[in-house]
Amino acid sequence: MANTAPLESFFNYVDQNQDHYVARLREAVAIPSVSADAGHREEVFRMGNWLIELFKQLGISYEAADVGTHVVDGKTLKLPPILLGTYGNDPNKKTILVYGHYDVQPALIEDGWSSDPWKLTEDSTGRLVGRGSSDDKGPIIGWLNAIEAHQKAGVEFPVNLKICFEGMEENGSEGLDDLILREANRYFKDVDAVCISDNYWLGVTKPCLTYGLRGISYFKVSVSGPGRDLHSGVFGGTVYEPMTDLVILLSKLVTTDGKILIPGVNDDVAELTDEEQETYKSIEFKLHELHSAIESQTNIFDNETRTLQARWRYPSLSIHGVEGAFSASGAKTVLPCKVSGKFSIRLVPNMDPDKITAYVEKYLKEEFAKLGSKNKLHVECLHGAKAWVASPNHWNFVAAAKAVEKVFNCKPDMTREGGSIPVTLTFQDALNKNVLLLPMGRGDDGAHSTNEKLDRFNYIQGIKLLGTYLHEVAKTT
Amino acid sequence: MANTAPLESFFNYVDQNQDHYVARLREAVAIPSVSADAGHREEVFRMGNWLIELFKQLGISYEAADVGTHVVDGKTLKLPPILLGTYGNDPNKKTILVYGHYDVQPALIEDGWSSDPWKLTEDSTGRLVGRGSSDDKGPIIGWLNAIEAHQKAGVEFPVNLKICFEGMEENGSEGLDDLILREANRYFKDVDAVCISDNYWLGVTKPCLTYGLRGISYFKVSVSGPGRDLHSGVFGGTVYEPMTDLVILLSKLVTTDGKILIPGVNDDVAELTDEEQETYKSIEFKLHELHSAIESQTNIFDNETRTLQARWRYPSLSIHGVEGAFSASGAKTVLPCKVSGKFSIRLVPNMDPDKITAYVEKYLKEEFAKLGSKNKLHVECLHGAKAWVASPNHWNFVAAAKAVEKVFNCKPDMTREGGSIPVTLTFQDALNKNVLLLPMGRGDDGAHSTNEKLDRFNYIQGIKLLGTYLHEVAKTT
Ligand SMILES: [Zn+2]
Ligand SMILES: [Zn+2]
Ligand SMILES: [Zn+2]
Ligand SMILES: [Zn+2]
Repeated sequence: MANTAPLESFFNYVDQNQDHYVARLREAVAIPSVSADAGHREEVFRMGNWLIELFKQLGISYEAADVGTHVVDGKTLKLPPILLGTYGNDPNKKTILVYGHYDVQPALIEDGWSSDPWKLTEDSTGRLVGRGSSDDKGPIIGWLNAIEAHQKAGVEFPVNLKICFEGMEENGSEGLDDLILREANRYFKDVDAVCISDNYWLGVTKPCLTYGLRGISYFKVSVSGPGRDLHSGVFGGTVYEPMTDLVILLSKLVTTDGKILIPGVNDDVAELTDEEQETYKSIEFKLHELHSAIESQTNIFDNETRTLQARWRYPSLSIHGVEGAFSASGAKTVLPCKVSGKFSIRLVPNMDPDKITAYVEKYLKEEFAKLGSKNKLHVECLHGAKAWVASPNHWNFVAAAKAVEKVFNCKPDMTREGGSIPVTLTFQDALNKNVLLLPMGRGDDGAHSTNEKLDRFNYIQGIKLLGTYLHEVAKTT
Repeated sequence: MANTAPLESFFNYVDQNQDHYVARLREAVAIPSVSADAGHREEVFRMGNWLIELFKQLGISYEAADVGTHVVDGKTLKLPPILLGTYGNDPNKKTILVYGHYDVQPALIEDGWSSDPWKLTEDSTGRLVGRGSSDDKGPIIGWLNAIEAHQKAGVEFPVNLKICFEGMEENGSEGLDDLILREANRYFKDVDAVCISDNYWLGVTKPCLTYGLRGISYFKVSVSGPGRDLHSGVFGGTVYEPMTDLVILLSKLVTTDGKILIPGVNDDVAELTDEEQETYKSIEFKLHELHSAIESQTNIFDNETRTLQARWRYPSLSIHGVEGAFSASGAKTVLPCKVSGKFSIRLVPNMDPDKITAYVEKYLKEEFAKLGSKNKLHVECLHGAKAWVASPNHWNFVAAAKAVEKVFNCKPDMTREGGSIPVTLTFQDALNKNVLLLPMGRGDDGAHSTNEKLDRFNYIQGIKLLGTYLHEVAKTT
């Protein structure tokens, strides 16, 4: 028996059961499913089982894919299962694949949390504070809440849903890529489009749809000389010091104001079109938001558009640190025998990681040769991933934009992001389908920080958003 | 009853009691008197008491100077006593002050020791392997063994001896400078010259006397910008990155081949005189010794003299590391908000630490200003100590040189060292007396490394050397 005002019934049910959904999120946050810490691995499995129980309650058929083991600190650990779910199998409906992760970042109250990170705590402004609230337990439970609300409100579910929830996202997504490739023509065969809710609004007031992410090439440049660390008193002045060479090389990578100095690297950056330039005009973003995010006024560009472009559509180069040198506080007079600089280049269309590696290696070797040092140089790309850009005009995005309008009464910002979410590219390439990033939380949720939070407003409206998006998908042709 | 061939009797006694002296050193090494580790502080006190027992046996009158407390990791710890000893009080004899330390560096067998570091183990080539064997338990016990041998052999002790043994040398010598200044006109009032046995031969075959040490100015240069660490994906390209600025600054300090680029720093270096140049000719040192010490062939100069001069009588600048940046293995994409480069300049006569600090600050500020960065710069000298050079023609050195000839049948190398031993300068300035460094161990003893050793030969001949030096002192006018 179809409901005559399906969205209204769905919305009403969600609003009336807010506290039930918050309680459910609280249950999930109470499981410290930290994937990066071997000591918490059991908790990640417990979180997977908690989801499986919910799948059963909701009538979602599932497979808990065993993706094997990995070695951490010499110990072999089982990888948490990747939960594959199927809800609905109607050949007349579209099939949407939703992805999320049930593992979380580490958290210790001593790090400066205002409350126990594993106890979801609501403050007076409706902020639900707890590890994983926004990244990514709120969103994945949001999908399941939407299913439940349809069932309880007697509203027909508008699409077939395929679910892919992993438990290793915060620790390199081990096993995921292989599984996606393996299941592309099996479990994911009928998927028409993909939706990932694992990022954030640009700011704190306006929803957004995200259609692009920068890629990354991460480099390690090592200079070695002596066979062991030396005392600088005894040997300073008589040997070629690896650290001297390394800082000279690192100083030649990028200027203070961010211009990359490696020949070739900037050549393949896609031209900024007039159409693209136009899209920046409507975006809700003010420099003071950047200032409050970076807690300083040390921004390079004095206007919003150029700042967003620098973040989204131009490459950048950051030097992260030095391995092998003295890094503690105090004064140690060591002359380190081998030091490695770490830096990464954020990639944008149409930069190719292999070409970037070639440019970097060639440049560093040439610059090192100019030094005339007797030390040895080694350059290595630790990983490379190209940028991702989807078409924001695809029906998947159009449906999401309409859903935003229905739930929030405004047009979403069309955003890109500076960081990478590797699975996005994997889904796009393996399934050859449009991928949409549809965030639930706000830009200030502090996903990997202390006091991570998800606003009650975002959680509850987010459940509506995810459900409405599926209704809009169903309406597209 | 004076012995008619005093040195011969003394030598014979020492030779005949070798194993007794080795057993005594073994007892001392078995006390892990690690001063830098709060958990071992009691052992440092135990080592002090062990020495006091020996003082009593030998009839050395003493004071165990309480120099108060210090705070380590928030815990207040008592400082080990500085042992002041007096042996002999004859107004017709010269008074020699000897300094050494009874604390040692940390050691763990897991670090790669071939035997328990706290169990003195003699190998087939007569190497006495154990922590503190050479640095500095062998030498301090050497002085006491020499006293005992004189007593047992019935040889009159040729001088009055003042002893200063501290237990914090490996942890900043806390309390020592104040005590020396306080006691300069009291306990140390009659001192005619100072002898320190806490360094090493240049190589492995020829004894040396050391008459110079480089000083040091240690700098921390900090660049800060954002209020917190940022994710380079989200913020890379939009903010001035402290690490970018820092590596540029560090790259401007020194060239690959060691030329210091800071204006002013090289100006006050004492000219190399013909006489000084001449002294290098006879020094026993080959580049292959440097190669085996640094375990590579990455030396800057292709001849021995220029290499020694670079180590001893020219300044050098070493970059030790970066605090605040990513320093572990692997790939982290952090954009650190505050980073501090650590570097030091080894000082030689006539460089003045205050002037060096002024040069460094001025230069870094100017170079930073050129960058046009919005970040903030802070330059700080963590500590400065000027170089020390004694007159190698003083009777103190002449006596030591004659002692070397009597014990080893060769003239000692007259050396300087690249590192600093701050107490040397303190004694010289506070007492206004000549200070001699008279090493017992060899250049390959590995004082702060795994498998620290003292050759039995060096230990036994060293006891003779210390005693003979005092006899030669007595003969000088
Ligand atoms: Zn996430
Ligand atoms: Zn995350
Ligand atoms: Zn020492
Ligand atoms: Zn030492």
